[in-house]
Amino acid sequence: MKNLLIGLDFGSDSVRALLVSDEGEQIAADVQPYRRWSEGQFCSPSANQYRQHPLDYLEGMEAAIRAVLTPERAPLVRGIGLDTTGSTPCAVDKDCTPLALLPEFADNPNAMFILWKDHTALEEAARIDACAASSTVDYRCYEGGAYSSEWFWSKILHVLKVDARVRDAAFSWVEHCDWMAGELCGHTDPLTLPRGRCAAGHKAMWHQSWGGLPPESFLREVDPLLAGLRQRLYQETWTAERPVGRLSAKWAAKLGLSREVVISGAGIDCHFGAVGAQIQPGDLVKVCGTSTCDIVVAGEINRCIPGICGQVDGSVVPGLVGLEAGQAAFGDVYAWFMRLLSYGGGEVSLQQLEKEAAELAPGSTGVMALDWFNGRRSPDANPRLCGLLAGLQLGTTAPMLYRALVESTVFGARAIVERFIREEIPVRRIIATGGISRKSPFVMQLLADVLNMPVKITATEQTCALGAAMFAAVAASVHTSLTEAMERMGRGYERTCQPDVQNVPVYEKLYQQYQELGKSIEKMTTGLPG
Amino acid sequence: MKNLLIGLDFGSDSVRALLVSDEGEQIAADVQPYRRWSEGQFCSPSANQYRQHPLDYLEGMEAAIRAVLTPERAPLVRGIGLDTTGSTPCAVDKDCTPLALLPEFADNPNAMFILWKDHTALEEAARIDACAASSTVDYRCYEGGAYSSEWFWSKILHVLKVDARVRDAAFSWVEHCDWMAGELCGHTDPLTLPRGRCAAGHKAMWHQSWGGLPPESFLREVDPLLAGLRQRLYQETWTAERPVGRLSAKWAAKLGLSREVVISGAGIDCHFGAVGAQIQPGDLVKVCGTSTCDIVVAGEINRCIPGICGQVDGSVVPGLVGLEAGQAAFGDVYAWFMRLLSYGGGEVSLQQLEKEAAELAPGSTGVMALDWFNGRRSPDANPRLCGLLAGLQLGTTAPMLYRALVESTVFGARAIVERFIREEIPVRRIIATGGISRKSPFVMQLLADVLNMPVKITATEQTCALGAAMFAAVAASVHTSLTEAMERMGRGYERTCQPDVQNVPVYEKLYQQYQELGKSIEKMTTGLPG
Repeated sequence: MKNLLIGLDFGSDSVRALLVSDEGEQIAADVQPYRRWSEGQFCSPSANQYRQHPLDYLEGMEAAIRAVLTPERAPLVRGIGLDTTGSTPCAVDKDCTPLALLPEFADNPNAMFILWKDHTALEEAARIDACAASSTVDYRCYEGGAYSSEWFWSKILHVLKVDARVRDAAFSWVEHCDWMAGELCGHTDPLTLPRGRCAAGHKAMWHQSWGGLPPESFLREVDPLLAGLRQRLYQETWTAERPVGRLSAKWAAKLGLSREVVISGAGIDCHFGAVGAQIQPGDLVKVCGTSTCDIVVAGEINRCIPGICGQVDGSVVPGLVGLEAGQAAFGDVYAWFMRLLSYGGGEVSLQQLEKEAAELAPGSTGVMALDWFNGRRSPDANPRLCGLLAGLQLGTTAPMLYRALVESTVFGARAIVERFIREEIPVRRIIATGGISRKSPFVMQLLADVLNMPVKITATEQTCALGAAMFAAVAASVHTSLTEAMERMGRGYERTCQPDVQNVPVYEKLYQQYQELGKSIEKMTTGLPG
Repeated sequence: MKNLLIGLDFGSDSVRALLVSDEGEQIAADVQPYRRWSEGQFCSPSANQYRQHPLDYLEGMEAAIRAVLTPERAPLVRGIGLDTTGSTPCAVDKDCTPLALLPEFADNPNAMFILWKDHTALEEAARIDACAASSTVDYRCYEGGAYSSEWFWSKILHVLKVDARVRDAAFSWVEHCDWMAGELCGHTDPLTLPRGRCAAGHKAMWHQSWGGLPPESFLREVDPLLAGLRQRLYQETWTAERPVGRLSAKWAAKLGLSREVVISGAGIDCHFGAVGAQIQPGDLVKVCGTSTCDIVVAGEINRCIPGICGQVDGSVVPGLVGLEAGQAAFGDVYAWFMRLLSYGGGEVSLQQLEKEAAELAPGSTGVMALDWFNGRRSPDANPRLCGLLAGLQLGTTAPMLYRALVESTVFGARAIVERFIREEIPVRRIIATGGISRKSPFVMQLLADVLNMPVKITATEQTCALGAAMFAAVAASVHTSLTEAMERMGRGYERTCQPDVQNVPVYEKLYQQYQELGKSIEKMTTGLPG
């Protein structure tokens, strides 16, 4: 055994530590749930308020890393890489301390990390959108043309508006990923804290062409409360293979690791998952969970790609443009249907349902669904759209509906792929990862049939943490480039679903009907209730 | 006790006998299921083939009548009236005997009554429709402008096509109601058997203006197999308050009744139900069961009302035009949802579901449904339309969906009422009867709110059998007119749902959205699968 790397993956509910060799072999792994979060603290689901206490991250990380280390392994660790959810920003003081770690803010949700799925900033997002639309430069153009309430500036403005105490105490703001890496290195100045390209470019409207963050004049126009903040944030951003620093004395002692351990740049989970899945130009890495994140990399692009979530130079693989899209509900749609069927208290077996749905011939049921149960994220974000079930008859059964729902999520996946292709970003192959990629062969085969493309299933589910470890290997000079790290450490693919040529033309027809139904419903959605 | 009347109601599954006084007081009632039918004999649901053996009717009727009679009551019986489902035709020989009563046809489904909901004659209906559309006179115009596979000529032609033995043996054809009344009187000649106006006008394109049934030339053009049949059917039709005859010796002996008992004209169940519910011009009687039948009466109408099922002078109340419309699925939609929720084997309580649905504020769920789970019957029949659920979100629950489904069936009811009003047929009040009118106060209140009209619930569920007894009372001269019989024998209303003025504008808006959604889906239905 030579060099070991730690990849940390901070998810929505827990943090995972993955200890791997420089050949990618998994030595150990551990998952620690966030304690306060799991108790529902600081959250209000009815108000779409989701906040996380920084202590949840610190305690979880410490426990997870300690769980994968032994006295024999610790001296071999060369680097730590990490990814988190995003945009998950937090207010910090001049020492780069999240306000919630100060006694006077310990219980204030506005002083904590605002989780990606928090939607308290709807109004602020609308304001930013309106200002950007009327600005000579559309600062949203590299973020798909619509600014989300899930993102950096919306959330900051919301807190500044509603909480004067936090407003007065907030010197600057950090993304979870950047703060986490800085914390491990002992960074104590928000003005010099290395900021990752990934979160900045995808969530904060950072772009080289306008000199970094949007100009002071624009931010001031959005709201005078933002005045002066820009200069207390950052101008430069870093791709993640660059070292952020070395482990601080405090954390080296806590973890039993050497102070020589290098911390690599941090980023958003799915982007790192694409690296862990060994993405190449022409691949679309689809992280299939409750929702999906779809990542593509491409060479130079000299224009804005409309209707996707973002395109950022170096956000995934240095030297390539990382493009992000996603489906706002994927596994969540299946879970919704399971909840519905459980209304009477019966035991509904997903396996049985999937078996019966798979036995139905494609195109035989007459049922057609739209997958927008959580609005539509890509292509062309529209949070007001809803799910739909059409073609219902008295003989329509639960497996028929389930099949239609699964088909709709796969049609939604195709709509994203088609957008990339229309915009001349090549997609020739799908790499599927995440829980559903391994749990549901039915969904994966449908994906291959509907897209008429091979779908490769990653051999490991831990692609995000593995990607983080790859970045760490480069930052610690264990490997000379990310390309080398991906080649050497990648775990490859468990299997490949090939499209079934019998089904391709059937789904082609159904997909056109899905598109037609979707357009028709979208046109009238402003008239629908809610 | 003075005069007694028997009303017989031959439903889809059973025959009901109601013994009432000439003041409408219920003396006794009995229901007898059809034995062979209940065993599934002669039917093939997968092929939509539903046939009933005449012995089921005869045996059921005898048992039901005997069950309501006692030695004291029998001598007081003055008349028998009856209604059946329709169109439910059967081939008869020269003696007016249904072929299935002959030994050589005893097991041949094509020699039996073809129940209203049998859809084996889809092709034949399409052929009739096409011929009528290109004819100088549109013989469908008083039947809503579209000829159904459920109706007389479609079914006859289908049997003539597929069964040479029946074709050769069939001298004439009868509707269930007409044959039943004739059988009680001992009629043995199909050429003189009194034919009811109701079935003839609503199902067989009989109309005074073109001299009765469609002309020989038209029928021959539809199919040469129909050549010559017209002259072995009928030219005249009778309204139901006229006597068909007196009880035959055979039936008088079987039932222990006098040969003086008068049999009145027969007709289709819902039309008689409207009489039993004391319909007046301005009322719409809605028989709410698995589907609905909607009956309106009006004075002279000098044109075809488009998009309803039929308009026939005297088909309900003599001297008034009877107009029939209907929803192809009503309670069936709720039953579909209950079946869906029971997929996991759980015990789903309709009562609980309805309670939770009723607690949701109108317009608060964002869910919108279309009720066309069995196609659309009225207005503007379109069997290809399907049900739909829109506005689905991850938080959408079973009670929200149930509410939307119920709302959609009530919106469908309003679409029928609006068609009548648009065509200047007044509808000012709903009289609801049938199972759901009494079982679901939630549905009835919704009906009042959505229509912004009072909804009266009949005091008896036996409105069809009661209507038949009213006709019998007139035919037997117990009462001098149907108006008098309806006044004297009617059971009135249990209660009236008044529209809730708070809800009316909310549902007004939702109804407009239902219309818009429906139009949009109808426009694209040709593109949908199935």
